[in-house]
Amino acid sequence: MSEFIAPLEMMIEAFRRLPGVGRKSAERMAFGILDMTEGETENFLAAVSSAKKSIRPCSECGNITAEELCPICANPERDRKIICVVEDSKAVISFEKIKEFGGVYHVLGGVISPRSGKGPDSLNLFSLSERIKKCGAEEVMIATNATVEGETTAMYISRLIKPTGVRITRLAYGIPVGADIEYADKLTLLRAIEGRREF
Amino acid sequence: MSEFIAPLEMMIEAFRRLPGVGRKSAERMAFGILDMTEGETENFLAAVSSAKKSIRPCSECGNITAEELCPICANPERDRKIICVVEDSKAVISFEKIKEFGGVYHVLGGVISPRSGKGPDSLNLFSLSERIKKCGAEEVMIATNATVEGETTAMYISRLIKPTGVRITRLAYGIPVGADIEYADKLTLLRAIEGRREF
Repeated sequence: MSEFIAPLEMMIEAFRRLPGVGRKSAERMAFGILDMTEGETENFLAAVSSAKKSIRPCSECGNITAEELCPICANPERDRKIICVVEDSKAVISFEKIKEFGGVYHVLGGVISPRSGKGPDSLNLFSLSERIKKCGAEEVMIATNATVEGETTAMYISRLIKPTGVRITRLAYGIPVGADIEYADKLTLLRAIEGRREF
Repeated sequence: MSEFIAPLEMMIEAFRRLPGVGRKSAERMAFGILDMTEGETENFLAAVSSAKKSIRPCSECGNITAEELCPICANPERDRKIICVVEDSKAVISFEKIKEFGGVYHVLGGVISPRSGKGPDSLNLFSLSERIKKCGAEEVMIATNATVEGETTAMYISRLIKPTGVRITRLAYGIPVGADIEYADKLTLLRAIEGRREF
């Protein structure tokens, strides 16, 4: 039996359902809520609830947005000639942080994963060919994660959009910058050799 | 400027206000909320909100409870002859976990802290003398934390309840079980020497 009274236990379990939160952290957060004033708790709940209600997929690319279009699609300065296909909005943020990519994104909202019963139908995928034509895109850079599912999805996408005649690229695999070759796993090292370039 | 859209940024900041949550964890939790179904988010919000609404201080001891009395005060088997004075409900849970203390608690809801402007008036303190008489308590074990504030509070309480004639005790200070003497700080070692006992 839990040493906590029922409503507290339920709050702890609610926090535990969030990603990266273990039992101890969830307990600390729940007590944090109890230590708050009524007003502070209301502000917390309102922030979560209104974010959840107002945030939706961009009608153009699938990225998260509070408007019809996400800030990137709404920006006329972005280069529509290159579309970067990513798994989720977190990847968009990673790309935006390096401030080097000036194109637009296409956010799949997941990957093809037979294991968890997710097929291509569950992804924001079938608008992509249409979008390539509409934008007059010249390159689609597939930037799904370097996992089995990410690979499978990349393969599927490249076959799907091949008929449009667009140039299809993939992020380079290799040794992470600053890493020791000694610690690179075999597959990474193999890909780094395959992808070697002229000095 | 934040790389996140406004409502997402507000949700991240709301999570950050919880104890032990840094920026990165708050971001992960916020995206966790976005990945949930509407129903899951509603369950999360309901669990937090109803815990906050239903949990209040026990009218007897100040411990958290969803009823009039906390489970400990409501239990007729608990020994009212010994009252353990603690800073907060987290301490009650720590004591209950060891399953050795059969008495009741008195939860202060904080400590005297001139630095943060908290005087004795802000604590659940003045019902204690009354309670000692009502229960016919024979011992009050003061178990505030081993901090300057905890010490000050313990001192204050011992003076406050002295007139009741009850036996007043304090948790032992010393080397934590399993710890190396080499790593004990000076003050702990000093207290361990002062508190030494016959073999």
